[in-house]
Amino acid sequence: MILCDIGNTTFHFKTSKKNFKIKTNADISDLKDYKAPLYFVSVNEKATAKLLKKYPRAIDLRDIIKFKTSYIGLGIDRQIVCNYIEHGIVVDMGSAITVDAMKNKKHLGGFILPGIDAYKRIYPQISKKLSFKFKNDINLDKIPLNTSDAINYAILDSIVLPILKIYRNYNLPLYFTGGNCQLLLKYFENKKYEKDLVFKSMKKIIKKHIKKENRC
Amino acid sequence: MILCDIGNTTFHFKTSKKNFKIKTNADISDLKDYKAPLYFVSVNEKATAKLLKKYPRAIDLRDIIKFKTSYIGLGIDRQIVCNYIEHGIVVDMGSAITVDAMKNKKHLGGFILPGIDAYKRIYPQISKKLSFKFKNDINLDKIPLNTSDAINYAILDSIVLPILKIYRNYNLPLYFTGGNCQLLLKYFENKKYEKDLVFKSMKKIIKKHIKKENRC
Repeated sequence: MILCDIGNTTFHFKTSKKNFKIKTNADISDLKDYKAPLYFVSVNEKATAKLLKKYPRAIDLRDIIKFKTSYIGLGIDRQIVCNYIEHGIVVDMGSAITVDAMKNKKHLGGFILPGIDAYKRIYPQISKKLSFKFKNDINLDKIPLNTSDAINYAILDSIVLPILKIYRNYNLPLYFTGGNCQLLLKYFENKKYEKDLVFKSMKKIIKKHIKKENRC
Repeated sequence: MILCDIGNTTFHFKTSKKNFKIKTNADISDLKDYKAPLYFVSVNEKATAKLLKKYPRAIDLRDIIKFKTSYIGLGIDRQIVCNYIEHGIVVDMGSAITVDAMKNKKHLGGFILPGIDAYKRIYPQISKKLSFKFKNDINLDKIPLNTSDAINYAILDSIVLPILKIYRNYNLPLYFTGGNCQLLLKYFENKKYEKDLVFKSMKKIIKKHIKKENRC
């Protein structure tokens, strides 16, 4: 099977042989015509339409997943990763950073921080004087003594502390996934890095669905 | 005397009778011609040039203040407020939120968070689905169960927690000043709100300077 995770800015494909990303504003008409079924999840309607134009038989996991939560409007991407983790805090770092708490297969809730790239954009928008180069080798126990450190420290603390708070409050294992989550791993103890968690979860959901269909 | 605090987006004037703000992109040529000396601080070079065109004899406090710190590139606005507080954590909320630690007249360092307005802009830039209305009545002890709360909770926690951390680490009194700092006061105990701290500090610096000049 072919898997595709459509985010705000990229198509992320996984075939049996390859794992590759394409910007959502790029031309995808030249992509290979796969024989295997293509399953996708998407938070981006425009890009979904583009994918369906290229692959009209692509199957939206939204129609398959049965994820229950009291949270109103939980993005399909968050449903997918939470569905797999079942018990833990899931931090998914993309253009936004979503943080969700799962306890014994129950979704407790979550919050949405800006992604690292969003933080990179916002400071120079406030003032040209706040242009900076992102660094993740900041000592968060030391109060900064220059503008670059003052911004990097603030970005890192404003991401790390809300995650630590929820981790301590719920005493659940901590899982990280998503594009640039490795930038932050050093600031947490007892964490697990789950590469391509979306794809792992998609596979699990699809297998369960196929099994059920065969039973009917 | 007339005081003017020039920020990234506004001229903030204080005369003996009035306290008013004008956008830095507005026309200021029609403003009154004051006889009293006009003192200003500015973090905005373009707006400074505009003020000096209108008031060529205006005096830049940058030439008067003597604020010592090991911090490289500390903005004049932060120097001014720290100079007044002398002992405490100073949170100045404007287009950016600056947080500085002063201990017995010594500046220990500080950091720079995005301002509330910057956070308001950044989410819809990530995705239209993350458009939201800012609220400051969020219970930060309860994990959110809808997208609006998930964003507001994240914004508030990402500002509140780094401030609380430095407050607890240094065990210093906590002072808040700046445009919309009242939005956040409820999330802190043992804090003081200092209205127009910049002007209070400017007055103190100017008086000290005049006294010294008269002695010479």
